[in-house]
Amino acid sequence: MTDPQRSPRSVAVVGATGAVGEILLEVLAERRFPVSRLRALASERSAGATVRFRGEAVAVEAVRPQLFDGIDLVFFAATGSLSKELAPEAQRRGAVVIDKSSTWRMDPGVPLVVPEVNPDAAVNHRGILACPNCTTIGFVMALEPLRRAAGLRSVVVTTLQAASGAGREGTDELSGQVKALAHGRELEAKVFPGPLAGNVLPLCESFREDGYSTEEMKLLLETRKILGLPDLAVSMTCLRVPVAVGHSATLLVETERPLSPAAARAALAGFPGLRVLDDPLNNVFPTPRDVAGRDEVLVGRIRRDLGSDRLWLWEVSDNLRKGAATNAVQTAELLLARGLA
Amino acid sequence: MTDPQRSPRSVAVVGATGAVGEILLEVLAERRFPVSRLRALASERSAGATVRFRGEAVAVEAVRPQLFDGIDLVFFAATGSLSKELAPEAQRRGAVVIDKSSTWRMDPGVPLVVPEVNPDAAVNHRGILACPNCTTIGFVMALEPLRRAAGLRSVVVTTLQAASGAGREGTDELSGQVKALAHGRELEAKVFPGPLAGNVLPLCESFREDGYSTEEMKLLLETRKILGLPDLAVSMTCLRVPVAVGHSATLLVETERPLSPAAARAALAGFPGLRVLDDPLNNVFPTPRDVAGRDEVLVGRIRRDLGSDRLWLWEVSDNLRKGAATNAVQTAELLLARGLA
Repeated sequence: MTDPQRSPRSVAVVGATGAVGEILLEVLAERRFPVSRLRALASERSAGATVRFRGEAVAVEAVRPQLFDGIDLVFFAATGSLSKELAPEAQRRGAVVIDKSSTWRMDPGVPLVVPEVNPDAAVNHRGILACPNCTTIGFVMALEPLRRAAGLRSVVVTTLQAASGAGREGTDELSGQVKALAHGRELEAKVFPGPLAGNVLPLCESFREDGYSTEEMKLLLETRKILGLPDLAVSMTCLRVPVAVGHSATLLVETERPLSPAAARAALAGFPGLRVLDDPLNNVFPTPRDVAGRDEVLVGRIRRDLGSDRLWLWEVSDNLRKGAATNAVQTAELLLARGLA
Repeated sequence: MTDPQRSPRSVAVVGATGAVGEILLEVLAERRFPVSRLRALASERSAGATVRFRGEAVAVEAVRPQLFDGIDLVFFAATGSLSKELAPEAQRRGAVVIDKSSTWRMDPGVPLVVPEVNPDAAVNHRGILACPNCTTIGFVMALEPLRRAAGLRSVVVTTLQAASGAGREGTDELSGQVKALAHGRELEAKVFPGPLAGNVLPLCESFREDGYSTEEMKLLLETRKILGLPDLAVSMTCLRVPVAVGHSATLLVETERPLSPAAARAALAGFPGLRVLDDPLNNVFPTPRDVAGRDEVLVGRIRRDLGSDRLWLWEVSDNLRKGAATNAVQTAELLLARGLA
């Protein structure tokens, strides 16, 4: 007997040559996702390139709607505008879309899914599911165990985001700047709004009229949607740091009922996809370099605030893996397991 | 007629070859501090070296108590243990000591001074005055104008601290690691508890039993002492980032009376030593690279918290200048101006 949940699917990856697309192909292979046939798609510019999947070269085709014919699952790891234009085309042709861009996330008809946190949201999908922002994923992974243990009242968060959150252009710009810094040359900035190597920028993405960044608003609104807490108080500043891969954040969490650091540690350690590294006296704590290449979200520095019942946490996650590719593949696995795709 | 406030003093700098000591000599010269004679002192290890002061080479002597004879003012920019042993020796010989180490800061008989914030604290000195921690100085500079405008109730702060906060060894370790990173070599860490280049470490200094770092406790206790607010609620996490010079911080400030972002901006802009760089729509905000080499504390991203009356701020300061050397020299200027040394 064949297991229908593992019966192979035809899969397309849009944005296969990008920073997330490349990892997505790796994660599909690593997790033995049942792929019968893979289409590697990208913008016109990348057509003709090849990518590797399960040890074989796959030719990259310029994406167009007809290429979604006969495809069961389409991962979009491309720009928002491409996703806005083409995700409905894939949907119309019967494919289920898992989209990594911000385009569909706040659409009331589109589930925004972190499989460990809100798997049931996937049930009512209409052909498009969205993956949250890379920063939001690590954030809600750290919050959900605390919410289950004691409820959530408010969070103050400062994020420190890696260059790869801005795609391959971001990683390339930082690595060029690191070389320039090492050789005492001027730093050139095009992707980011100033030199990032040897620096910190108090901006991810772009500013709105009200002084908040678009990234900060994503963090707020997506968190509320995923957790199903439309009034959750989230106070946030998002920063860009000279790190290639690995977003980190300081969290000050107010729970509804008292929660000791020991109970918080136990709740976090027992949550799937989350690992606690927290032994300060032996200098055990997670860093972006520790998490790069891993699928788990790492949490440390769990302690009581001085002078209140709140809890401090330090959270790091690989923004390309759990923050993007791994979460997308886990969402696809969820769909298969529940017969939703 | 001579101005007694500008009558030249004999000055000694202990730790003249260190990261702060070197800048201290620069700042004394830049600000035309009235120095009749300069003694450059350091540990035995650095004796025989030379440093430059006002364009001339000065031989570095191994520090010993007798060298304080006939000295009016001694700046300590050395280790805490050296300061603990030798500051009283200088004091006993009639010199006034301005100490940059943490040794004397919390001593009730020692004023802890940021001249723009609490100049009157200097009045009752008994021969030793302390300079706050480099992170504390930028922090209280940003808080004091808000306190004067509307009172302070609480602050949540995440600091992002530069490698030079750990002295020249810290700067050297980071710059070696940046070279290694640029050439794809392994990173070696001795000064910091892990690789810093391309990374963020959730620790400055060392951990205490309760999971807080010694740096975090300094920030709390020094801030309360300087502001004269022994019960001020300060919630903090201190991080180390791969930046050579320039500490930065996100601040979420709760005032006692309502304060609009516009009123906060005006209060901050009108405070001496502080400059507001805050025009988000034109990507105007301060960064560590902007502040390096400057004496002003820079503040930006002033905005209302979403869902509360609190205010967010982003603050950066040069940890070697205003965070150390400049603040020490300003303290000496204050003593001269008030006839206190």
